[in-house]
Amino acid sequence: MTDSAMKNRFTGGAGYAALNEQSIRGFLVSSPDLVTVLGGRPQDWSVCEVGDGNLNLVFIVKGPAGGVCVKQALPYVRLVGESWPLPIDRAHFEHEALKSEAAVVPKLVPGIYLFDKVRAAIVMELLEPHIILRKGLIRGIRYPGLADDIATFAAETLFSTSDLAVAASKKREHQSMFSLNTELCRITEELVFTDPYRIAELNRWTTPQLDDIAAEFRTDARLKIAVQELKWMYLSRGEALIHGDLHTGSIMVTSEETRVIDPEFAVYGPMGFDLGAFMANLLLAYYSQAGHATPADDRQEYQDWLLDTLEAFWRSFEARFLALWRMRNAGDAFVSDLFEDEASSQALEACRGTFMARLFQDSIGFAGAKMARRILGLAHVEDMEAIGNPDCRALCERRALKLAREFMLNRGSITSTGAVRRLAETVLRG
Amino acid sequence: MTDSAMKNRFTGGAGYAALNEQSIRGFLVSSPDLVTVLGGRPQDWSVCEVGDGNLNLVFIVKGPAGGVCVKQALPYVRLVGESWPLPIDRAHFEHEALKSEAAVVPKLVPGIYLFDKVRAAIVMELLEPHIILRKGLIRGIRYPGLADDIATFAAETLFSTSDLAVAASKKREHQSMFSLNTELCRITEELVFTDPYRIAELNRWTTPQLDDIAAEFRTDARLKIAVQELKWMYLSRGEALIHGDLHTGSIMVTSEETRVIDPEFAVYGPMGFDLGAFMANLLLAYYSQAGHATPADDRQEYQDWLLDTLEAFWRSFEARFLALWRMRNAGDAFVSDLFEDEASSQALEACRGTFMARLFQDSIGFAGAKMARRILGLAHVEDMEAIGNPDCRALCERRALKLAREFMLNRGSITSTGAVRRLAETVLRG
Repeated sequence: MTDSAMKNRFTGGAGYAALNEQSIRGFLVSSPDLVTVLGGRPQDWSVCEVGDGNLNLVFIVKGPAGGVCVKQALPYVRLVGESWPLPIDRAHFEHEALKSEAAVVPKLVPGIYLFDKVRAAIVMELLEPHIILRKGLIRGIRYPGLADDIATFAAETLFSTSDLAVAASKKREHQSMFSLNTELCRITEELVFTDPYRIAELNRWTTPQLDDIAAEFRTDARLKIAVQELKWMYLSRGEALIHGDLHTGSIMVTSEETRVIDPEFAVYGPMGFDLGAFMANLLLAYYSQAGHATPADDRQEYQDWLLDTLEAFWRSFEARFLALWRMRNAGDAFVSDLFEDEASSQALEACRGTFMARLFQDSIGFAGAKMARRILGLAHVEDMEAIGNPDCRALCERRALKLAREFMLNRGSITSTGAVRRLAETVLRG
Repeated sequence: MTDSAMKNRFTGGAGYAALNEQSIRGFLVSSPDLVTVLGGRPQDWSVCEVGDGNLNLVFIVKGPAGGVCVKQALPYVRLVGESWPLPIDRAHFEHEALKSEAAVVPKLVPGIYLFDKVRAAIVMELLEPHIILRKGLIRGIRYPGLADDIATFAAETLFSTSDLAVAASKKREHQSMFSLNTELCRITEELVFTDPYRIAELNRWTTPQLDDIAAEFRTDARLKIAVQELKWMYLSRGEALIHGDLHTGSIMVTSEETRVIDPEFAVYGPMGFDLGAFMANLLLAYYSQAGHATPADDRQEYQDWLLDTLEAFWRSFEARFLALWRMRNAGDAFVSDLFEDEASSQALEACRGTFMARLFQDSIGFAGAKMARRILGLAHVEDMEAIGNPDCRALCERRALKLAREFMLNRGSITSTGAVRRLAETVLRG
């Protein structure tokens, strides 16, 4: 890559500038389609910057006829500041991932109106009255369709981009593009798999309450081996196009609808990374409930619902993934015409079972890594942060860390969601 | 990719034409450096096309002062003909792989004078008096430095391109480029991992002698699962830049020197693929010796030397790879500063042992797949083909197939080169 190409990648070329409440009107009015969606004239539109994530600007723009959401990449990590530059071409990878997802689960992702490469901006469907799932979980709201919707999202997106579904040459070309999403991957590599296990400037935790367990995570040799084995998998296993950041803050919900947003971390990686991320965030919600209990609601039933959801999620994921494998096995792996006779077909079915068991183990390992980084690393979750009393928060967080450690160390012997549930409950009871 | 870019990829753009003994002079004379290497004038040069491989044109050009070797990609598989088109951009991938190898083992690869992208031609050092290793093995020649040289080649090239050695972003960018080497990978995907296990037009074997075992390979459900699991690894595990075709026909030798040539199949893949390829071809040579025995030499001592070489190869590879890991661990996997205290350092050393054991198992599995494809698939090896008596050849080949099957099915329980030796000898004795 030339120096100037590299510079543009980070700071944008001519034409890139961070949007603001004024300039965004000029941008949107240049598209007749968007003018139709919004209705009226630019001066009639309301513009509100609502980005509460760690990386980007997010504007909600509403006109007389309707609204849109505009997400623009900033050339640095918003959570850290300009000291951590981040290439704006991540908007390109997010757009490509959204297209890939929309090809199989159009109803589970936001619709795209426009991608502006120069501005590194995606104009998409305004999701209303959806809220971020994490906020719903903090409020104790049940989402009956959630487990099945995320299972569908994961099964369809992971299967359809894997060697089970796609010709190898097509997959290699797609993977070639996403392999250039290096800087977002670097965030995962450092913040998930490395920093929580060493002294690092960006780490933070509830102190002094968790100082002891934080120190244990930095000195536990077996645990550090376990997390580095998971990192090796993240770095080297291009099993499918993964979302890369499938936590409960990347999901928007109503009581009837589920949408997965923000796939800017998309890369070809191990399938278990996405599956583990979702389960990890359900479990963080689970352990945070004690901090959100009120005299009227001790949240114990809600905790059960969260574990029910985790179990239902895996059950549904497994069933859907297997169904896809049996029906849409057009890929170059486990070539279907080798398994047409009865004995071979039975052997393949047994192999599918082994495959899913291995995937479950991977997912449990990644879930552990994802839980720990949210308590000991840079980026925390509101589930825990919203607990005002630091002693209470630390108690919740300590439980989550215990389960996380158990997951990473013993993922080989945790072989069912029932076992996960028992383990989670045992840790909760102390 | 546009249609015209795709067309150029396959058949070359303006300026591409297959070289011949005349046109190659005009090509070489345009480079003052090459004129100096060759000496004299173009009409003084001797040109000889010697390509005995399956894919390319290879010319040896000699002048009064010296010689060069010119390898040019043809837009189809030479072994099959124009019915199997093959993109000439594979010369680009070969050149890039040669550069990557030369960075760590310059003495084990041919030197490059020139890469001409338009002509898809690489002008390289003429290796003289080197011969193709396979031909030496058929003649029963011992190469005392071979095991160590190939161990060095494999350890250095695999380690230096893995996440153990390289920053993740650099590795991802390199992988992105090689992921486009789709059509050469397709050859491996089909001819190694698929065709030998089904009825396929291009398959051939010594018939009718091997009809029974060929049929068994097509119906053995467990074996088909095993080979498809290996294929899944080949498709999804980007552990390092592998040579991709490291058989004894890709190695040139003298009694003192070893050079690895022809990395046009290079891609980020599982390390065990290269290691298994080399071991597989030693074992094919081993089983072929009975067909090359003479009254004066029953080749039994040479068979022992081949197994000694296999054992020495792995021993040396393992020692070198581990030494590199301990000393040049600058990559993003198993981050070194997490393992500085004594207990962590010991745990990491144990983990390295587990890593190598797993790599050995992978290698044994791939070795099995590589042996089988040379007997039941399209491309055979001269070790066996040179055995004139078909009954004798079939006997040798049958033994190799038995070991191959054992390797693929039971790689999990073959845990040392000693076990490989015992197994190979048991199969030889019937």
